[in-house]
Amino acid sequence: QDLVSASDYARYAKEHLPQAIYEYLVGGGADEITLNRNRQKLDEILINPSLLQDCTNGGTDTVCLGEKFRHPLLLAPVAFQQLAHPDGEIATAQAADLLETGMIVSTLATQPLEDIAENLTQPKWFQLYIQQSRDFTLSLVQRAEKAGYTKLVVTIDAPLHGIRNRAQRAGFVLPEGISAVNLKDRPPLPRQSFDPSQSVVFQGMMSEAPTWDDIAWLQQQTSLPIILKGVLSVDDAIKAKAMGIAGIVVSNHGGRTLDCLPASIEMLPLIRQAVGPDYPLVFDGAVERGTDIFKALALGANLVCVGRPQFYALAVAGALGVAHLLRVLREELEVCMSLAGTPQIADIHADKLWRP
Amino acid sequence: QDLVSASDYARYAKEHLPQAIYEYLVGGGADEITLNRNRQKLDEILINPSLLQDCTNGGTDTVCLGEKFRHPLLLAPVAFQQLAHPDGEIATAQAADLLETGMIVSTLATQPLEDIAENLTQPKWFQLYIQQSRDFTLSLVQRAEKAGYTKLVVTIDAPLHGIRNRAQRAGFVLPEGISAVNLKDRPPLPRQSFDPSQSVVFQGMMSEAPTWDDIAWLQQQTSLPIILKGVLSVDDAIKAKAMGIAGIVVSNHGGRTLDCLPASIEMLPLIRQAVGPDYPLVFDGAVERGTDIFKALALGANLVCVGRPQFYALAVAGALGVAHLLRVLREELEVCMSLAGTPQIADIHADKLWRP
Amino acid sequence: QDLVSASDYARYAKEHLPQAIYEYLVGGGADEITLNRNRQKLDEILINPSLLQDCTNGGTDTVCLGEKFRHPLLLAPVAFQQLAHPDGEIATAQAADLLETGMIVSTLATQPLEDIAENLTQPKWFQLYIQQSRDFTLSLVQRAEKAGYTKLVVTIDAPLHGIRNRAQRAGFVLPEGISAVNLKDRPPLPRQSFDPSQSVVFQGMMSEAPTWDDIAWLQQQTSLPIILKGVLSVDDAIKAKAMGIAGIVVSNHGGRTLDCLPASIEMLPLIRQAVGPDYPLVFDGAVERGTDIFKALALGANLVCVGRPQFYALAVAGALGVAHLLRVLREELEVCMSLAGTPQIADIHADKLWRP
Amino acid sequence: QDLVSASDYARYAKEHLPQAIYEYLVGGGADEITLNRNRQKLDEILINPSLLQDCTNGGTDTVCLGEKFRHPLLLAPVAFQQLAHPDGEIATAQAADLLETGMIVSTLATQPLEDIAENLTQPKWFQLYIQQSRDFTLSLVQRAEKAGYTKLVVTIDAPLHGIRNRAQRAGFVLPEGISAVNLKDRPPLPRQSFDPSQSVVFQGMMSEAPTWDDIAWLQQQTSLPIILKGVLSVDDAIKAKAMGIAGIVVSNHGGRTLDCLPASIEMLPLIRQAVGPDYPLVFDGAVERGTDIFKALALGANLVCVGRPQFYALAVAGALGVAHLLRVLREELEVCMSLAGTPQIADIHADKLWRP
Ligand SMILES: Cc1cc2nc3c(=O)[nH]c(=O)nc-3n(C[C@H](O)[C@H](O)[C@H](O)COP(=O)(O)O)c2cc1C
Ligand SMILES: Cc1cc2nc3c(=O)[nH]c(=O)nc-3n(C[C@H](O)[C@H](O)[C@H](O)COP(=O)(O)O)c2cc1C
Ligand SMILES: Cc1cc2nc3c(=O)[nH]c(=O)nc-3n(C[C@H](O)[C@H](O)[C@H](O)COP(=O)(O)O)c2cc1C
Ligand SMILES: Cc1cc2nc3c(=O)[nH]c(=O)nc-3n(C[C@H](O)[C@H](O)[C@H](O)COP(=O)(O)O)c2cc1C
Repeated sequence: QDLVSASDYARYAKEHLPQAIYEYLVGGGADEITLNRNRQKLDEILINPSLLQDCTNGGTDTVCLGEKFRHPLLLAPVAFQQLAHPDGEIATAQAADLLETGMIVSTLATQPLEDIAENLTQPKWFQLYIQQSRDFTLSLVQRAEKAGYTKLVVTIDAPLHGIRNRAQRAGFVLPEGISAVNLKDRPPLPRQSFDPSQSVVFQGMMSEAPTWDDIAWLQQQTSLPIILKGVLSVDDAIKAKAMGIAGIVVSNHGGRTLDCLPASIEMLPLIRQAVGPDYPLVFDGAVERGTDIFKALALGANLVCVGRPQFYALAVAGALGVAHLLRVLREELEVCMSLAGTPQIADIHADKLWRP
Repeated sequence: QDLVSASDYARYAKEHLPQAIYEYLVGGGADEITLNRNRQKLDEILINPSLLQDCTNGGTDTVCLGEKFRHPLLLAPVAFQQLAHPDGEIATAQAADLLETGMIVSTLATQPLEDIAENLTQPKWFQLYIQQSRDFTLSLVQRAEKAGYTKLVVTIDAPLHGIRNRAQRAGFVLPEGISAVNLKDRPPLPRQSFDPSQSVVFQGMMSEAPTWDDIAWLQQQTSLPIILKGVLSVDDAIKAKAMGIAGIVVSNHGGRTLDCLPASIEMLPLIRQAVGPDYPLVFDGAVERGTDIFKALALGANLVCVGRPQFYALAVAGALGVAHLLRVLREELEVCMSLAGTPQIADIHADKLWRP
Repeated sequence: QDLVSASDYARYAKEHLPQAIYEYLVGGGADEITLNRNRQKLDEILINPSLLQDCTNGGTDTVCLGEKFRHPLLLAPVAFQQLAHPDGEIATAQAADLLETGMIVSTLATQPLEDIAENLTQPKWFQLYIQQSRDFTLSLVQRAEKAGYTKLVVTIDAPLHGIRNRAQRAGFVLPEGISAVNLKDRPPLPRQSFDPSQSVVFQGMMSEAPTWDDIAWLQQQTSLPIILKGVLSVDDAIKAKAMGIAGIVVSNHGGRTLDCLPASIEMLPLIRQAVGPDYPLVFDGAVERGTDIFKALALGANLVCVGRPQFYALAVAGALGVAHLLRVLREELEVCMSLAGTPQIADIHADKLWRP
Repeated sequence: QDLVSASDYARYAKEHLPQAIYEYLVGGGADEITLNRNRQKLDEILINPSLLQDCTNGGTDTVCLGEKFRHPLLLAPVAFQQLAHPDGEIATAQAADLLETGMIVSTLATQPLEDIAENLTQPKWFQLYIQQSRDFTLSLVQRAEKAGYTKLVVTIDAPLHGIRNRAQRAGFVLPEGISAVNLKDRPPLPRQSFDPSQSVVFQGMMSEAPTWDDIAWLQQQTSLPIILKGVLSVDDAIKAKAMGIAGIVVSNHGGRTLDCLPASIEMLPLIRQAVGPDYPLVFDGAVERGTDIFKALALGANLVCVGRPQFYALAVAGALGVAHLLRVLREELEVCMSLAGTPQIADIHADKLWRP
């Protein structure tokens, strides 16, 4: 069996999925400059090892936002998982549970958020897309609270889809029978019409987009800590912290929204620098190796999310695939920590990286 | 239909055009170092987004040189458009009109400049190649004035063709029936002969080339504001401004004249810096995405031209193609502005770019 | 015959070896970032020649750690050489002897270390992997001493295998009949079992890994000078020197253990700087040209090892292949020294390199 | 006909020449790092144009070392031209004469140096490889003087062949009937034998290599100005000037001797800086465009040589090919000068280049 790394799942997924779905999944915005840069900038980071360290007391346990993690890896919210496998998000949750991995469940899951939660004893966070109707947004929040989700991860970098040419060219549409079931009671959007001086983008789509005011409103409505996902600039990070947001996910949505954004990994240390050493930072973007997790931790992340690879593994082998993927990533991280001479997560600092 | 971006038109144009015409169109000078650099340097520029901004009052309207533009996009002057489609420049003008886009009409149009002007209610500028005969040059200027063109765009970077190896190798010649109809009354050039100490280039072709004196002369002859197209150095920009030229197009002619020039986008901020914040600057060179327009605006352009893509779209689908292309570019710009958090053109500044 | 450089042997070896063995040999860790960087960083170094120098008294003789070398080239320890050729390490030793080249014999040789030693009158060093059983480690050391090895090269950068995806994907396993014969009396490892809070990596594999204490212990047990192989950071180099280690091999194990380490050649000058001009430094990593040897010497190495190429040459043509390879490398070094104007090894300094 | 640039000749030459000869010609030393860098570093240089300049009095005439050149282009010494075409060096000389181009004739020409000289009324320089026998060297010098050569270009960067793997792999040998006819009276080399402590390189080949003493000796023997070809370091340039050498050719022999040398174009400005503005500098290395000539002039060269392309053109179309090539290069230079706004050679300075 030559399935030995996350990239092998990517390779095999191509064969297991209809082409349009594969393109939708793998693709980034426009010319994929950001998508490719996410990978390239991670690759450019080098490790400065300390040899001959005693690692027998080594371990990957860590604590973030009051929750215990067996290892600093989290499943990023990835929509529509039944596109990959009929078992959908529930299979992913089962795999996460088996491998003691936390999971962020997307608003756009294809299975009820309650059912997914039931399968997961690990940290489970709910990713919220704020809806135009505040009432309906609240109903989602309340269901998440009730189902035992412990954080609200509000995604703010995708008020509209971005330019997804690759999926468009492949003619991607959601297949019959796959839908965002948790939104099925969403009130229909008012039919919009535009006068010639107006724009479908600004006066249309963006009229549904959340603003800082909506975030402030949401803070009033829930006792769950709120995490903003998609922060990519120092200014927005400072603002989030200042208004009492519990933490942020440094991310460019895997290069899927605005193309030509910087790589998330190049913003991470600048944001860490700006928010101080104690503010919770989650990182995602092109993570597919234990060394990637190590690098993100060294540059200031508390937790690291993996996006597309979970989808690939799900497509190739269902829950088992995801479980195997998580095992591989975990072991790669442990091997990296051993060879770098950092037996504990707390040992991983910027001085373990090497700058030419 | 997989025609969803400007680059798709480029791809399809290759199939729709005879090879020699395609090569003529797409090619740059010599080894295409400048052509490729135009693209590469745009790609290297990154965007620094502000999230959660209210964009409901967003719009792309802008004013330049006293004219209102619905969006900061302009069609660059591109010669011989009947090479692409029998409907030629008139089709392009109709598309521009439909999409509320300005157009610069080339001296080397294949249809009468008056007919083109009639089809266009948007800002229309006339691109002038100064001719050896001053009288004939004046007659062109007067026709342009009379036809309602509002600016003279004098192209100064192409006194001779440059080394167009790609077109030469493909054996490009203007096909029967396609010609620069607006020059048909041009007085025949005097037959030149050279003694052995002379050069066909210097004493031949360059003897027809305009100089700063010709520009000064032209300023006396017309009430239309004059814009110099092809300025690529700080010194020439300063000189142009000092002598009362109304604005400049920062351009290297799409890499088609002298190879090994810098990318136009790398000169743009230096020229903006030199001429001050209020001097009108138009930009062109490899623009094919909304993000490209955004970047050029952020680096100091007031308007942004698109060259080859209009030709590709015309070749693939005539006026409809050009209209669709313009719609795509406009929407991409609006999407970029929304995701970057800059609802108005005036919000787009250098601080919305990110430097590693 | 088109076998004229080390890279030609690499090319031919691919045809001479079963695919899985070839992949095992040639591959690096994970994504081979370090493997490729080793080569790339050597390629980026440029030579600053002095012409018209008298080279008639030229020669490559050098002295390191009290031993005379006819040229500053050494065979790196490479395990399991019978994978390449039935004549195994003995053939390699015979070739080294013929070409007056030193050799480091691996703990994981496929032939008795005594038999290999017998075939070699040149400097012979023993590469030691410290074993979990101190007694057994000692027995190896004593056999090496008795067989006439003059140094102990303790490899410290491979306490576990690293992520060898390429070999895994090719399904590499040691073929029947090929084994680490010098370890055949090794006491069986205690069967380990883990509770759920433990890790196979940290509490399993790394429990056998040597630490600085083990090195200190070893220093008490042998009169042979100890050299640490695999040092890649300035701190570890300083520590090694401080505790009386005789010298170090600056190496990242040919990119085979932890991926994303810096290239060994970029660490070499920093380590030379840190340990002072007189501390013995051996270098390896992607050496396959006389110019590579020259560059490493100029950046501070006293001796330079070649790893994979010996294996390729052995696979292609046995002892003769290795001998030819060594002759090629030696001559390339002499040619380089002649054309750079450095007739003696002692003439090769950093000023013979050119920095853009 | 798609032969419109120097690179087209390279392409066609591949079809016109036996593979081994083509490989010999085109190849560089070892891994061709220097060969490729010569090209790459020229490509990276950008031009800063001045537009709207009056070029009607433009011309390429220049003076160097007391000789008038119609344009600053010179044919580099390239050995064994009958490999390309039976008409050999004489054809090249005829083409040079027709296009008013100077020529450096190689010691290793395949036709008598006197016959070549007869065909050339332009500046003709003799490239000298100093021979082991001083008498024979002198006889060559005297023949060159008598035949009307005006300079001695002593090549110093090729005392031995370098590692020419590409030619070796292709099995290149001089075909029957092609030889260095001007060396046919060379006294046979003494048969050398080496004791085991000696090296074929140092005590063998390098014993024939010239040193600074031989250059000093040669200065006594001839009234012709001596130019050193192959200087690539600032120190050697300073030394040459100090000892009264008339000028130097900044060159790395087209990347054919020692690999890993810097590009000649990156050394040129440093050497110009070191020797002052008036010392004659000739440049070669990867010149194949008018823009390349322009760049070298701007960085301090007085004349620019073209090597391989003359051979390609000769192979494809004999004297006519070389003449066409020279015309193309000349016109490209004139076009570049026109578009850059530098009508005279003396106008081409470093300020006409643009540094990002
Ligand atoms: C197919 C797909 C669907 C996604 N759906 C969501 C989503 O519903 N909500 C969200 O916040 N992010 C979503 N993301 C973004 C991921 O959470 C994550 O930020 C991104 O994939 C990380 O990059 P990676 O895929 O390179 O690991 C999605 C990403 C992909 C690839
Ligand atoms: C086929 C073609 C014809 C052109 N003709 C003209 C012209 O007649 N006058 C002019 O000023 N520029 C001309 N240009 C240059 C364009 O106005 C513009 O500067 C250039 O194409 C911009 O680069 P882009 O094609 O990468 O967008 C032409 C360009 C092309 C590709
Ligand atoms: C197949 C193979 C086996 C190796 N075995 C050992 C070994 O047993 N002990 C050791 O210290 N290093 C071992 N190495 C590492 C080499 O000693 C050396 O550090 C590395 O190969 C140098 O890089 P190069 O192959 O690019 O020249 C091995 C390398 C290879 C390729
Ligand atoms: C086939 C060939 C033969 C050459 N023979 C000589 C020679 O006899 N003497 C010499 O000084 N240089 C010789 N050179 C080097 C050239 O003079 C010149 O330095 C080099 O080719 C310049 O680089 P270019 O080929 O990239 O233009 C030769 C080069 C080639 C390619």
